[in-house]
Amino acid sequence: MMKPIGNPLTIFQLEVRYNETDLMGVVYHSNYFSWFHLAREQLMKAAGARVAETEHRGIHLPVIEACCHYRAAAKYGDRLEIRVFVHPKSLALRPHFNYEIQKEGIGRAIAYGQTKHVWSNHQGQLLTGLPEAYQSLGSCFDGRNSTCK
Amino acid sequence: MMKPIGNPLTIFQLEVRYNETDLMGVVYHSNYFSWFHLAREQLMKAAGARVAETEHRGIHLPVIEACCHYRAAAKYGDRLEIRVFVHPKSLALRPHFNYEIQKEGIGRAIAYGQTKHVWSNHQGQLLTGLPEAYQSLGSCFDGRNSTCK
Amino acid sequence: MMKPIGNPLTIFQLEVRYNETDLMGVVYHSNYFSWFHLAREQLMKAAGARVAETEHRGIHLPVIEACCHYRAAAKYGDRLEIRVFVHPKSLALRPHFNYEIQKEGIGRAIAYGQTKHVWSNHQGQLLTGLPEAYQSLGSCFDGRNSTCK
Amino acid sequence: MMKPIGNPLTIFQLEVRYNETDLMGVVYHSNYFSWFHLAREQLMKAAGARVAETEHRGIHLPVIEACCHYRAAAKYGDRLEIRVFVHPKSLALRPHFNYEIQKEGIGRAIAYGQTKHVWSNHQGQLLTGLPEAYQSLGSCFDGRNSTCK
Repeated sequence: MMKPIGNPLTIFQLEVRYNETDLMGVVYHSNYFSWFHLAREQLMKAAGARVAETEHRGIHLPVIEACCHYRAAAKYGDRLEIRVFVHPKSLALRPHFNYEIQKEGIGRAIAYGQTKHVWSNHQGQLLTGLPEAYQSLGSCFDGRNSTCK
Repeated sequence: MMKPIGNPLTIFQLEVRYNETDLMGVVYHSNYFSWFHLAREQLMKAAGARVAETEHRGIHLPVIEACCHYRAAAKYGDRLEIRVFVHPKSLALRPHFNYEIQKEGIGRAIAYGQTKHVWSNHQGQLLTGLPEAYQSLGSCFDGRNSTCK
Repeated sequence: MMKPIGNPLTIFQLEVRYNETDLMGVVYHSNYFSWFHLAREQLMKAAGARVAETEHRGIHLPVIEACCHYRAAAKYGDRLEIRVFVHPKSLALRPHFNYEIQKEGIGRAIAYGQTKHVWSNHQGQLLTGLPEAYQSLGSCFDGRNSTCK
Repeated sequence: MMKPIGNPLTIFQLEVRYNETDLMGVVYHSNYFSWFHLAREQLMKAAGARVAETEHRGIHLPVIEACCHYRAAAKYGDRLEIRVFVHPKSLALRPHFNYEIQKEGIGRAIAYGQTKHVWSNHQGQLLTGLPEAYQSLGSCFDGRNSTCK
């Protein structure tokens, strides 16, 4: 997994919750995937697709692949930034997102991630092409990958 | 909340999972409610209602009230027994379950719990009376509260 | 469990996360207890006790009892307010907190909760009296229970 | 990620829990990583290292990389088998585990996974070489990769 290049399309901020830690005193590793999801949702909203609408239209983005590289531990109360990057050409068929997690005041990533997806309807059937509700997501990349939100 | 009386209708055994612990090195308190749920499911199965059937028939038992009293901490790797008790007269309308959690080799409860429920269909509408699929649950109490399983 | 009276000491706002839902399309019931915890933490911070300090001083507030009454379901994307109420006289020995969860735009509670606690040090030993770091919590109640934050 | 070859060193069996599902009616994707962890623990125990001992000796196996490929959804009540494969040469320094998840009665994998680890002590310092408590893990591979348990 390469370090993502370009500008992040969105930056999601969170504070580590107590119940995300384990007995080693650090965040349990599977929680990073929930954070990637939260960051992805923020990007989708920034692209103009509200949760309610998407639910109504029955457009889903199930995960078909997910990876995370852990560099340093996240701890209870840490303020984190999840930066989301997208491969523009992947959007129409199998959207690929990259993630970089930074801890406030550290200045370097504590984790990198990647998820791959397909577009599906509520019955789980594959959709082809970038759904209309998300067209603006594609245009985020106009003007040299400027940030959506 | 009183200590339950009579015999448990089922005893569910589990081993504490790593990701159920928190940074204090003990089980995070909300997990006990998931354990109560697992124990309740075992009781339902023992009463003859298989998951698939229930899903098919659309009978649900949503929680309307849940309480837990914590006496001693549960830790990673602990082998626990969840003993489930039922108030027989509650079954037809608002089933009440009581729980006692014992740690293997300790001989006294580390937690007590209670949940109250209603019967509903898949659309969330209330059902009245003990559903036919669960009739055998009522007969568990014949012969002075003998154990179903 | 009575509906709490007086003013809430803090109001914690959250948006329901996707992974807090279950196959019924509503929030899984044990998650409400994590939300109560998040709201309690906000109150503690408002009272002047920063997480780092508390960690350093080794003061903990383990849950010895937790209850929740569910009135209406919470769903993915719902914006919720958790209102926290405290029984002032309970603070020195066994702090009692009450909670009311409101859904934005609904105007009535979808759930009520209560948790009871003890003060302990990092080794799990009981502390008596309101710890110095939390003295300001007691003074929140000056002036007829006005809001801390 | 390649499909693992050779025989699995252990097969961990589980039944999907209700609270592992999300509003789409299928298992939320981050839970697969907890399952890999449970399967890994079973392997460690089979290799002779009991949880209590390991805790006592302070040997940990933190995750530095985790990936999962999702092929078909897992649902509530599904009985699953997690097959664990190990790269023998990786054991001494950076243990690599591969996973294959099969649904009972399906006969093909619904997911593949991989995790990479380091050995560390309780303070998070790296250990080099296969710890003595796990020597038997190395010998699982005698006789052409026969199953430990």
